[in-house]
Amino acid sequence: MSARKLSAWQLHPQLAEDTHPLAQFGLCEVRLMDDANHPWLILVPRIEHAVELIDLDEPQQTLLIREVDRASRALRAAVKPHKLNVAALGNAVPQLHVHVIARFHDDIAWPRPVWGMASAQPYTPEALIRRVELLRSALEA
Amino acid sequence: MSARKLSAWQLHPQLAEDTHPLAQFGLCEVRLMDDANHPWLILVPRIEHAVELIDLDEPQQTLLIREVDRASRALRAAVKPHKLNVAALGNAVPQLHVHVIARFHDDIAWPRPVWGMASAQPYTPEALIRRVELLRSALEA
Repeated sequence: MSARKLSAWQLHPQLAEDTHPLAQFGLCEVRLMDDANHPWLILVPRIEHAVELIDLDEPQQTLLIREVDRASRALRAAVKPHKLNVAALGNAVPQLHVHVIARFHDDIAWPRPVWGMASAQPYTPEALIRRVELLRSALEA
Repeated sequence: MSARKLSAWQLHPQLAEDTHPLAQFGLCEVRLMDDANHPWLILVPRIEHAVELIDLDEPQQTLLIREVDRASRALRAAVKPHKLNVAALGNAVPQLHVHVIARFHDDIAWPRPVWGMASAQPYTPEALIRRVELLRSALEA
């Protein structure tokens, strides 16, 4: 595979704006949604032009579910939620991405899904640093 | 494995009430959500006590993503949506289930997720029969 081929994938500008980098898995970029309302990971497969899960081939799908499992376990270990929500929607941002969200019975949207329930509340710089450190350490474990 | 072990899994009563049977895959029951607002499949792994995706072991997760792929392709072939939404939420019904929803740019909730946007609109008997026939035929293809 040429270097040109390897470098063709780029993170969608909207995802870049809404999230912070946490880790690189074999298939996915793992990012933190900048919304202090919910501990919220975004996994973005580095596959050019992928929009739907079914745009991934079988080995890529298998890798994706492994990485969703790994990210989910890390998120659970880090923040001990009551429930996990996992979703590939993409109605607003077409680049394929998977939400992995820690939910609590007393969070701002419970028991409804998080999307559209409350405006995103960006982390303060201090809270962002703490959250990123906690999650990076869990994702590397 | 004993017959008792094999028969221990049961569909959650709320899922039984909200959906109609479409197909049995190797891991999952495939059901139709009784909401004419959206062509909407529910895949329910026949694994006792599973609540989260991470409650499935690795072979079960791999099978699940294969069956989500198969169901997604069937749904796309049957109703030709603009987008697919795939999600495992489970905030209301704890039994692990995966939503596979066909979305259209002019559907009642677009571009928002479907949950909580509009009351479910049960199919008329005639529309239900047509929808079930169409989807069963696509799922068997």
